[in-house]
Amino acid sequence: MSSRVRSVRVGLAGKDRSYPVRIGAGTLDDAGDAIAQATKATRAVIVSVPPVARRYAPRLERSLRAAGIRTHRIVVPDGDASKNLAQVSKLYDAMLEFGADRSTAVVALGGGVVGDLAGFVAASYLRGVPFVQVPTTVLAMVDSSVGGKTGVNVPQGKNLVGAFHQPRLVWADVDVLGTLPARQRAAGMVEAIKHGAILDRALFERFERDLERALDLDPTVLVSLLTRSVAIKAEVVSQDEREAGIRTLLNFGHTLAHAVEKLSGYQKVLHGEAVGMGMVYAARHSEALDLAPAGTAERIEGIVGRLGIETELPSFPRRAYLSALRVDKKRTEAHIRFVVLRRIGAADTVPLTPAEVYPPRPGSKKRRVRR
Amino acid sequence: MSSRVRSVRVGLAGKDRSYPVRIGAGTLDDAGDAIAQATKATRAVIVSVPPVARRYAPRLERSLRAAGIRTHRIVVPDGDASKNLAQVSKLYDAMLEFGADRSTAVVALGGGVVGDLAGFVAASYLRGVPFVQVPTTVLAMVDSSVGGKTGVNVPQGKNLVGAFHQPRLVWADVDVLGTLPARQRAAGMVEAIKHGAILDRALFERFERDLERALDLDPTVLVSLLTRSVAIKAEVVSQDEREAGIRTLLNFGHTLAHAVEKLSGYQKVLHGEAVGMGMVYAARHSEALDLAPAGTAERIEGIVGRLGIETELPSFPRRAYLSALRVDKKRTEAHIRFVVLRRIGAADTVPLTPAEVYPPRPGSKKRRVRR
Repeated sequence: MSSRVRSVRVGLAGKDRSYPVRIGAGTLDDAGDAIAQATKATRAVIVSVPPVARRYAPRLERSLRAAGIRTHRIVVPDGDASKNLAQVSKLYDAMLEFGADRSTAVVALGGGVVGDLAGFVAASYLRGVPFVQVPTTVLAMVDSSVGGKTGVNVPQGKNLVGAFHQPRLVWADVDVLGTLPARQRAAGMVEAIKHGAILDRALFERFERDLERALDLDPTVLVSLLTRSVAIKAEVVSQDEREAGIRTLLNFGHTLAHAVEKLSGYQKVLHGEAVGMGMVYAARHSEALDLAPAGTAERIEGIVGRLGIETELPSFPRRAYLSALRVDKKRTEAHIRFVVLRRIGAADTVPLTPAEVYPPRPGSKKRRVRR
Repeated sequence: MSSRVRSVRVGLAGKDRSYPVRIGAGTLDDAGDAIAQATKATRAVIVSVPPVARRYAPRLERSLRAAGIRTHRIVVPDGDASKNLAQVSKLYDAMLEFGADRSTAVVALGGGVVGDLAGFVAASYLRGVPFVQVPTTVLAMVDSSVGGKTGVNVPQGKNLVGAFHQPRLVWADVDVLGTLPARQRAAGMVEAIKHGAILDRALFERFERDLERALDLDPTVLVSLLTRSVAIKAEVVSQDEREAGIRTLLNFGHTLAHAVEKLSGYQKVLHGEAVGMGMVYAARHSEALDLAPAGTAERIEGIVGRLGIETELPSFPRRAYLSALRVDKKRTEAHIRFVVLRRIGAADTVPLTPAEVYPPRPGSKKRRVRR
């Protein structure tokens, strides 16, 4: 089935820093050669979580060994709780014990947690070793594996520590999504749809039309939708690697998502679900601020709802939301660069204080926004 | 005395990544304006160690405040033992408590330990915030503050974790060296001399001539020698930021230095002293391998000796040296890229195994080297 491989290039300034994202169906067993070529590594440390490692690590390892790469597997506990500094430190130890040097690649086999954690370790071990992403969730395929953001959580907030460290290759096989729980599949689709919502109306409308076929893992539909979604992200990252400008738009839905995740203790809600709620909130807020035409939020709410995701924010007290918003890392001084929709397929940012992002419930005083 | 300011530009590829190193005498009180201009920061976190903070932080803070920058001081325990992940974590906490955001600069006020530690925190806090070095030791002025290497130690070895994160500005006032213990001043001079030994015979010879005046802190001699030394390092870093080629030459003396520091537990020997011993060893080894003319090592030994530094390696067992060399981070597979002198002012690398780097004492079997 490797004929179904599609490729997107993430173009970056600087010698040898551009890299391909290859998306296919049934391509996991071909990863080894691609990794060998992209990294020139002689060894690879595979970082994964138990269920994914059990199912897919042996195939990846066979493929790497066939390409002449010695492998070592490091399995970390599943879940966002593994994205912390203690785990980073354990990974350093495991790599030192394996004798990992600068010609050792770190290969993240898993979802966003594994990619962010392994990526930060790859960024900081010996001040940086080659890194490859083999994403096994929708979320990781279209979002977290592309763009070089790596990092871990600290008790004060999500991703407050990290690095920009671009992978040498992203190798995505949509066939592995067959063993992903349906809830995670749906949650991951949110970020793919988001790219359409903020920058490509046609893609958004293809999701509106083909969402159920995508969720049922029709390989042709899935490879096509995910490739277009990745292409949008790649284009944004190419233009603005360090999030000084347009890349901020990718945070659509994330301001409230981070707050929801923080207030829920990162447990009960999946990242994509939180982003879905945050997108609905941000779209409604865009309308309330007279920035988007009426009906915009309804379409966002419609597609998020079809994913089986709650469209209302959890009912934490307003003061809890405000406090969570105040540590949001996108904050420059007192303002948050809040991402709004101008319409489906076009986003923008407005500087809002936390109190403007999360105003008192309607019926109280009038909202004002600085332009 | 600010008329004595000399400037070296570290030219790097990429937008706004080049930065100046400014070396002067009596210029500490002018740092604030320069930092404001280089970082556009509205706040600054000053990281320092007790004796330096007591003496110089108030002047730096006054200068920053006069430039409109709000300051917060974080003092870490003195010594290499502070360069660890636990301290990094504490710094993140202190910065979060101060409300540090992306427009907050991290200013390292101190020597190499403070610069490496604060630099790694600046590299990884919110995936990177503006960083400024205000070095207060000779070592930091000519070496560790320039080039963007940041990092911490782990129990298995020195600087095995870190990041490349270039400062926006290096601001060095040689007047502060007056309160630096003489032993540290001498040790730091080793790295300055090293730049001459590997790449600039004329600079090496100026050190041979003016060493005592430099150690006595004659400002004219010192500013001139340190500026030339920094210019060499800046040139090397500009050509090879990530140590893929010529930058390796800066490791002259460091292979054995790292082993000595590791075996001594990083306590009894200063980094510059270890490098001095390592340079003498490497120069002798260059002669033994018929790579450098006779007399080369004698000159290295001569100048290191005049600094009051022991020129013989500590007498740990050979197996201890071999074991320490095996975790040296410059190792690619089985070989170390060992830096040798071809003559004073010209260095080169040869791939050597740990056993070839540290062969059995003379009189036993013949040494062989792969070219």
